Amino acid sequence: MPSTAVKPAFVEHVEMTGHIIDSLLLPKVLDAVLSRGGRYHIQQLDLGQRQDNPSVARIEIHADSAKQLESILAEIHPHGAVPIHPTDCTVASADVAGAYPDGFYCTTNFRTQVRLASDWVDVEDQEMDCGVLVDPDGLAARCVPMTSVKIGDRIVIGRRGTRVFPIEAEVRKGNLFEFMASPVSSERPKAVGVREIAGAMKRTRAAGEKILAVIGPAVVHTGGAECVAWLIRSGYLHVLFAGNALATHDMEQAFYGTSLGVSLEHGSPTDEGHEHHLRTINTIRRIGGIRQAVDRGILKSGIMYECITHDVPFVLCGSIRDDGPLPEVITDSLVAQTEMRAHIPGTGFCLMAATTLHSIAVGNLLPAWVKVACVDINPATVSKLMDRGSTQTVGIVSDAEPFLRALVLELQKE
Amino acid sequence: MPSTAVKPAFVEHVEMTGHIIDSLLLPKVLDAVLSRGGRYHIQQLDLGQRQDNPSVARIEIHADSAKQLESILAEIHPHGAVPIHPTDCTVASADVAGAYPDGFYCTTNFRTQVRLASDWVDVEDQEMDCGVLVDPDGLAARCVPMTSVKIGDRIVIGRRGTRVFPIEAEVRKGNLFEFMASPVSSERPKAVGVREIAGAMKRTRAAGEKILAVIGPAVVHTGGAECVAWLIRSGYLHVLFAGNALATHDMEQAFYGTSLGVSLEHGSPTDEGHEHHLRTINTIRRIGGIRQAVDRGILKSGIMYECITHDVPFVLCGSIRDDGPLPEVITDSLVAQTEMRAHIPGTGFCLMAATTLHSIAVGNLLPAWVKVACVDINPATVSKLMDRGSTQTVGIVSDAEPFLRALVLELQKE
Amino acid sequence: MPSTAVKPAFVEHVEMTGHIIDSLLLPKVLDAVLSRGGRYHIQQLDLGQRQDNPSVARIEIHADSAKQLESILAEIHPHGAVPIHPTDCTVASADVAGAYPDGFYCTTNFRTQVRLASDWVDVEDQEMDCGVLVDPDGLAARCVPMTSVKIGDRIVIGRRGTRVFPIEAEVRKGNLFEFMASPVSSERPKAVGVREIAGAMKRTRAAGEKILAVIGPAVVHTGGAECVAWLIRSGYLHVLFAGNALATHDMEQAFYGTSLGVSLEHGSPTDEGHEHHLRTINTIRRIGGIRQAVDRGILKSGIMYECITHDVPFVLCGSIRDDGPLPEVITDSLVAQTEMRAHIPGTGFCLMAATTLHSIAVGNLLPAWVKVACVDINPATVSKLMDRGSTQTVGIVSDAEPFLRALVLELQKE
Amino acid sequence: MPSTAVKPAFVEHVEMTGHIIDSLLLPKVLDAVLSRGGRYHIQQLDLGQRQDNPSVARIEIHADSAKQLESILAEIHPHGAVPIHPTDCTVASADVAGAYPDGFYCTTNFRTQVRLASDWVDVEDQEMDCGVLVDPDGLAARCVPMTSVKIGDRIVIGRRGTRVFPIEAEVRKGNLFEFMASPVSSERPKAVGVREIAGAMKRTRAAGEKILAVIGPAVVHTGGAECVAWLIRSGYLHVLFAGNALATHDMEQAFYGTSLGVSLEHGSPTDEGHEHHLRTINTIRRIGGIRQAVDRGILKSGIMYECITHDVPFVLCGSIRDDGPLPEVITDSLVAQTEMRAHIPGTGFCLMAATTLHSIAVGNLLPAWVKVACVDINPATVSKLMDRGSTQTVGIVSDAEPFLRALVLELQKE
Repeated sequence: MPSTAVKPAFVEHVEMTGHIIDSLLLPKVLDAVLSRGGRYHIQQLDLGQRQDNPSVARIEIHADSAKQLESILAEIHPHGAVPIHPTDCTVASADVAGAYPDGFYCTTNFRTQVRLASDWVDVEDQEMDCGVLVDPDGLAARCVPMTSVKIGDRIVIGRRGTRVFPIEAEVRKGNLFEFMASPVSSERPKAVGVREIAGAMKRTRAAGEKILAVIGPAVVHTGGAECVAWLIRSGYLHVLFAGNALATHDMEQAFYGTSLGVSLEHGSPTDEGHEHHLRTINTIRRIGGIRQAVDRGILKSGIMYECITHDVPFVLCGSIRDDGPLPEVITDSLVAQTEMRAHIPGTGFCLMAATTLHSIAVGNLLPAWVKVACVDINPATVSKLMDRGSTQTVGIVSDAEPFLRALVLELQKE
Repeated sequence: MPSTAVKPAFVEHVEMTGHIIDSLLLPKVLDAVLSRGGRYHIQQLDLGQRQDNPSVARIEIHADSAKQLESILAEIHPHGAVPIHPTDCTVASADVAGAYPDGFYCTTNFRTQVRLASDWVDVEDQEMDCGVLVDPDGLAARCVPMTSVKIGDRIVIGRRGTRVFPIEAEVRKGNLFEFMASPVSSERPKAVGVREIAGAMKRTRAAGEKILAVIGPAVVHTGGAECVAWLIRSGYLHVLFAGNALATHDMEQAFYGTSLGVSLEHGSPTDEGHEHHLRTINTIRRIGGIRQAVDRGILKSGIMYECITHDVPFVLCGSIRDDGPLPEVITDSLVAQTEMRAHIPGTGFCLMAATTLHSIAVGNLLPAWVKVACVDINPATVSKLMDRGSTQTVGIVSDAEPFLRALVLELQKE
Repeated sequence: MPSTAVKPAFVEHVEMTGHIIDSLLLPKVLDAVLSRGGRYHIQQLDLGQRQDNPSVARIEIHADSAKQLESILAEIHPHGAVPIHPTDCTVASADVAGAYPDGFYCTTNFRTQVRLASDWVDVEDQEMDCGVLVDPDGLAARCVPMTSVKIGDRIVIGRRGTRVFPIEAEVRKGNLFEFMASPVSSERPKAVGVREIAGAMKRTRAAGEKILAVIGPAVVHTGGAECVAWLIRSGYLHVLFAGNALATHDMEQAFYGTSLGVSLEHGSPTDEGHEHHLRTINTIRRIGGIRQAVDRGILKSGIMYECITHDVPFVLCGSIRDDGPLPEVITDSLVAQTEMRAHIPGTGFCLMAATTLHSIAVGNLLPAWVKVACVDINPATVSKLMDRGSTQTVGIVSDAEPFLRALVLELQKE
Repeated sequence: MPSTAVKPAFVEHVEMTGHIIDSLLLPKVLDAVLSRGGRYHIQQLDLGQRQDNPSVARIEIHADSAKQLESILAEIHPHGAVPIHPTDCTVASADVAGAYPDGFYCTTNFRTQVRLASDWVDVEDQEMDCGVLVDPDGLAARCVPMTSVKIGDRIVIGRRGTRVFPIEAEVRKGNLFEFMASPVSSERPKAVGVREIAGAMKRTRAAGEKILAVIGPAVVHTGGAECVAWLIRSGYLHVLFAGNALATHDMEQAFYGTSLGVSLEHGSPTDEGHEHHLRTINTIRRIGGIRQAVDRGILKSGIMYECITHDVPFVLCGSIRDDGPLPEVITDSLVAQTEMRAHIPGTGFCLMAATTLHSIAVGNLLPAWVKVACVDINPATVSKLMDRGSTQTVGIVSDAEPFLRALVLELQKE
C-alpha cells in the first residue's frame, strides 16, 4: 500500500533514577527533547511520593531522523538519562599522538562510569573536557587530557556504554531556586557567606581532606597577605595555586612594605616603588629561589615564607604578563596544568579569591564534587566560573581583604 | 490508650494544573514544602505524557503546626498551587487611610483571580506589592496602592479564595535552563538580541499595542538621542518615561551640541560646558515649558522635540539629584507613579535603556505579561531588575548608543 | 598706513595667587587659554622659590574675538584667575519666578566671593549649580536654587566682580598625581582607607562638627545595619540622609530578621519574605510613623531606632521606586532637597555608602570644603560622583558591610 | 664653636627642558621633592612666555641625608629632571645568569638615553621593567629582559648618566585635565571614539607602519569575528596577538556556527555545543595545524582563515586555562613574550579589544610612543592598563561587537 507512507521511527528508551523532580533533572530532560524537535512519551513514572523516596522514570523518545535522535541523546546524557539496554562502551585506538580519535567521548566534571566487560566501572581522575582512556586490560578507565594521548591509546568513542551522575540539586531551605534566579549579587548578607565557608573549611580539615587556595595578587594589594599567612600557620590551607604576581608582591611586601610600589602601611606610592617588584624578582633569582631566601634569612614573613616553613606545597603558574619570573614559576602552561593536577586528589574544599585566570583554570581541573567558594569584587568573575560548568561554586561578591579578615576571625572562634 | 499519642495533623490538599513539570512549577512547590519543614504526598499525578497535554497534580501537604502549614501555603501559592476546596476570599474594611488592614493579601505581578460570590474573577490593574480592593457590589476587584486606600475600602485578607497564574516557563530551544544559569553576561552574540527586540517591537506595533520606552541620560551622553528620535518619528515608541536629566541633556544637545558639557561632535568638554545643562533648564523655565519651546521655534530637534511634534506622551519623574527641574517634571514621587500607571494599559512591550532607578520603578508597575527588554552596560542593573520579580525581562549587557544604532538599522530592514 | 592692518586686540589681564604651580592651577589656566584658541603672555611670575612661599602670576590673554575672550575667561575663572582691575559684580532683577535672569552667574562648589560696594564678600550657602542672590541692602550674597527665585530678586549676572578660590591640591606624600591617575580601583590596601576615614571622623567630632551619613539599602542587605547603629550610639553619626528603602529594610530586619525577604542570619529567603518589606511599611503607616513605633515599644533595634532614641535627625527622601512609602518619607524632591540643605551647615565630614542616587544628590549640595568618603562596591558610582565636581571625595571601592565592620573596629581602638 | 651646628647639606642641581609647565612635569617634580621630605629652590626659570617657547628650569634640591636625596632623584628622574653635570653611566658585569647585578637601572617605557664615552645614545628596544645592556664596544645600549641576561653582560647601574624623555601631555582642546579627572567612563559619546580610532588606523597605514591587534574570545562570542576578518582583508590589521581561546572559538564558529557552544545565529546553546570547542581543537591537532586546515579546504572563513590567506602573522600565547591547545599555541610564556617582541618594531598603532591578560602583557612590551586604544566593556580592564604605566592608552568602555561594527563602517567611509 504505497500511499500510507509510514514515517520512519527513530526511537530510544531511556531511564532516569533519583530525585529527578526535586532536582530538576526530569524537567531538564523533557525540555531538551522538545527543544531539539523531538517528542516524548513518559511510559512509567514511579514518583517518590514522599520526599525520601527516589523516583524512576522511563521515557520513550521519538525523533525524525537518526541525527536528531543522536543529538537529543547527547543533550540528555549529562542529566543522567541512560538508554535502558546498555552495552559496553565503544573504544578506538588513537591514531595521532596528542589527539583523540574522531568521535571521542567528551567528559564533564560529574562522576562518570563506563561499561567494560558488562560491568559499570568508575572513570578515575574525573575532569571536564577530556577523553576517557581505557586500560590495556580493559577493566579500568580514566580521564586523559588531549595532549597526553599516545598512539595506540584506547579511547572511548560516543556515549554508548557511558553514564554520568549529575549532582542532584540540594533540597534545603530556600536554597534551590533563589540561588539560580540570581547567582551573583553583592547585596547579600556577607557574614553568612563567611560563616558557611569557615564551616566548610573546618569540616574539610576535620575529615582529613585538603583545602586548596587559589589566590590572585589583589589579595596582597588590598592588604590580605597576613590573613592568608594565618590560614597557613593555622592549618587551614594545604595547597596553594597562584602566579608569579602573587608570590612577587607578597615578597615585595616582606622586603619593602609595598605591593606594586604602594605602601601597605600608608596607601601611597613610595620612592621608586614601581621598581620594587622587579628588584624583588631579581633578588630571588640571584639567590636561586624562594626556599633559599628563607633558608638564608632574607625572607622572613608573608605567604610564601609560611608555605616554605610549614611545608605547604605551592604551584606558581606562569603567564605572558609576568615580569621575571621567579625561579619557581612554571612557565609552560601544560607543565603547570600537570603539576596542578598532581595536587588535586584528596582536596575537599577550594577557596578562590581575587583571580579570574587561575580560578577558571582550576575550575576546569576539579571534579564536580569538590566544593568551591569563589570570592571576587567583580560579579563577572563568579558568573564566568559558573557559566563554564563549575556549578558547585558558591560565589561571593566581596572585597578580598575584608573577606579574608572576617574569615580569619570566624575561624578563630572556638 | 494514652501511649499512642497521635501527632496532630496539619494537612491541606492542593491542586496544580498546566505544564507543571516542564515549567518547573511542580519541582518548585515540592522544594518549598520540604524547605519549610513540611512533608508531601503526591496523591495523584496525571502527567501530560506528551508535551501538549497539561498535567494535573494533587498533593497532600503535612506540617507540624498551623503556623508552618500557613507558611508553606503562602510560599507555594504564587506557583499556582491552590487548595482543592475553594471558598470565597475574605475581606476586611480598611480602618486607617493610606494603609491596608492587618493580614492583607499582598499581590504579585502575575495574573490573579479572587473568588467572589462563588465565581473566580480577574483582578484588574495587576501590579506587584499592592493590596486587592473589592468593589462595593462585591463582583469585581482590582489592585490598589497602599497610599490610595480610604477608610472603609474593602481589602482582601489572606490567601483563601485567591489564586495566581504564574507564567509557565517557555519551552523552546535551549531557552530555559541556560538562561537561568546565567541571566546576564556581556559575552553573548549581540546581533541576536537586537534582532529579537526589533521583532518584538514590530509585532507589538502590528498588534496595535503600545511600546513604552524608559531611558536614562547616558543615552544622550553616548550619542544615542537621534536613534530615539528616529524611533518616535517612525512610530516605534508610543510612551516615554524618563527623568529631568534625560530631557535636560537632550535639549542641551539641541541648544548647545553638548551633553553635560561634553561635545557630542568632538567628545571633549567645551567652554563653560558644565553650565549648559543649568542654562538649558533656566531657558525652558523662563519660557514656561518644553511645548512652548517647540511652539516658539526655540527647540528644533531631539527626543523631546519629537515627542511634542508626534504627540507621544511623556512622564518626567523627579528625583533628589535633579537641578532645576524642568517645568514638566513631576517632583512628587507618588503623583509621578500615578501618572505612569495611567499610561500602562495597552502596553505590549517595554524597552529600558541605561537607567537603574526608572527601570526598577517601572518594573514594579508592569504586570508580568508585558515583555521587557533591559539594556545596560552594567550587568548589576539587569540582575537587580530580575531579582525584584520582573522575570519577564530579557537582559542585554551592552552599550546604549551602539545598541540603539543597531536596533534602528534592524528596524529599517523591511 | 593702510598696509599695517592692525588685528583687533581682545585682551584681558588676569592674576593668580597661591601655590599655583604645585597645585596645577597655573598649568590648567595656560592649557585652557591654548585649548580655546587664545594666546598668553606671562608678564610676571613671582615664583615661591621655596615651597612655603605663595606664587603670584600675571598673565596677558589675547583672543581673536570678544566671544572667544569671554569663553576663555569663563573657563579659567574657576581656577582662580581673576581680572586685575576688578569692578563690582553686575546684578539684574529676576523677571520670572523660579528662574534666573538671562546671563546669570552659575556657581561652583568652591568658596566664592562677589564684589559689592567695592568690597569682596563671601557668598553664603555655597552650593554648585545655583545662582547668587544679592541681599536688598547690597552688602551680602548667597547661593539660591533656581526654583526659589522670586520676581524682583537681585541675581548676579556674568563673572565680573566675582572670584572663586579653588581648593589647592594637597601637596603631601605621593598623594597628588597617583590619585588623579587612577581615582578608583578596588586593588588598594583597604585598612589604610578605613584608618583614614576613622581618623577624619574622630577629628570632625573633636572639632565639634557634624558627621553626615548618606547610606543605601545594601548596607542593610549585606548585614551592616548594626554597624551603623553603633556609629549612632557612639556619637559618630549626627545626621542621616537616606531613602524609603533603607529605613524600610532596617525596620524589616528589626521586625522579621530579614532584608528584602532574605534572612540576615541564614542568608536564605524566608517564608513570605518578599512580603516583609510591604508589611513593615504598612505597620508603620498604621501606627503613624517611626517615632510612634519606638514609643509604643514595637521598634526596638536598628538604625532608625537609634536615630529616634539618640535624637539624630534624619531626612528620608522619596523616589519613584518606593513602595508605600513610610510616613516620614518626603515624596516631593524639591521639599526633600530643601530639608537636606537645612542640615548641611556645620557638617565637617560626610560618609556615603552603597547608594548612587543619594550620594550624587548630596554631593550636589555640599560645598567643596566638606570632606567626603564614598564607599561602594561599584567603581562607577565613585567615578560618577567625582566626575560631577565633587572632587573633595575620597573613593573606596569596597563592600559595605565589611567596610563598616572594619570602620567600627578602628573607631573602637584606643 | 659648637653651638652653630651646621646641618650637613645633601644637594643636587637638576635641569628640566621643554613644555614643563603645560605638561605638568615641573609641578610633578616639585611635588615629588616635597613629598619625599626634601626642599627645593628654583634657581632659574626661563618660562616660555608664549606657548610655543620651551621653558628651562634649574632647581636646587636639598635633602637631609644621602639616602633621601637619592630617593628624590630616583623619583624625579622619569619626569625628565637630569643632574646638571652629567657623567657617563655606570656599568657592572652580570655575575648571575638570568638576573641583573644589584643596583641595576630599571627602565620605563619612555624614550631613554644613556651616556657612553661622553655621548648620549638612545637605548634601543625600549621596554618597561627591563635592564639596559651596553654593547661590548661600549657605544650602544638596549633593553634586555631579566631572563636573557648572560654572565658577563655589561648592565647599567643606578641613574647616573641616564636620562628619560617623558611624553609631554598633549595640549589641545579640552584634552588634558578632563581626561585625567575621569580616565574611564561608559558615559561618553561613542561615535567620537570610533572616529578617532579609525583616523589613527588610516594614518598608521598611510605612514607605512603596522597595526597590531590584541583580541580576546569575547570578540567572537559577541559576534564580532567577521569585523576582524574584514580588517584583515582590508589591510587594517598587520599582526595579531591572541590566545588559544580566540583562535579556537573563531574556528568553532567556522566549523559549527557556534562560539563556546552558543549559536551566533540564534543566541541559544546548541546540541552538544559545549563540546564544539574541544572537537575543534582536536580536529586541528589531528590535521597538524591551522595552516593545514586552510590548505586542505577544511577551514574556510573567520579570523584565523584570513590571517593565513593574507599572510598576517599571529602569535597565539598559551595560558593555564587552555584546553588542548591548538598546535600553534606557544605554551611557554617566556617563548611567547620573545615571539611577541619580535613583531613589535614598526608598529604604529595597537588595538586591544576584550582581553585583560593579553592587553596588559602587550602593554608591558610596547614603548610609550606607540598609541594604544583599549576597548572593553569592563571599566576595570582599561583602568588597570593605564595604572600599570601604559599611559598612552585611550580607553573606551564599550561592547566589543558593536564597537567593531561601527569601526568597520567608519573605515569604509570615503
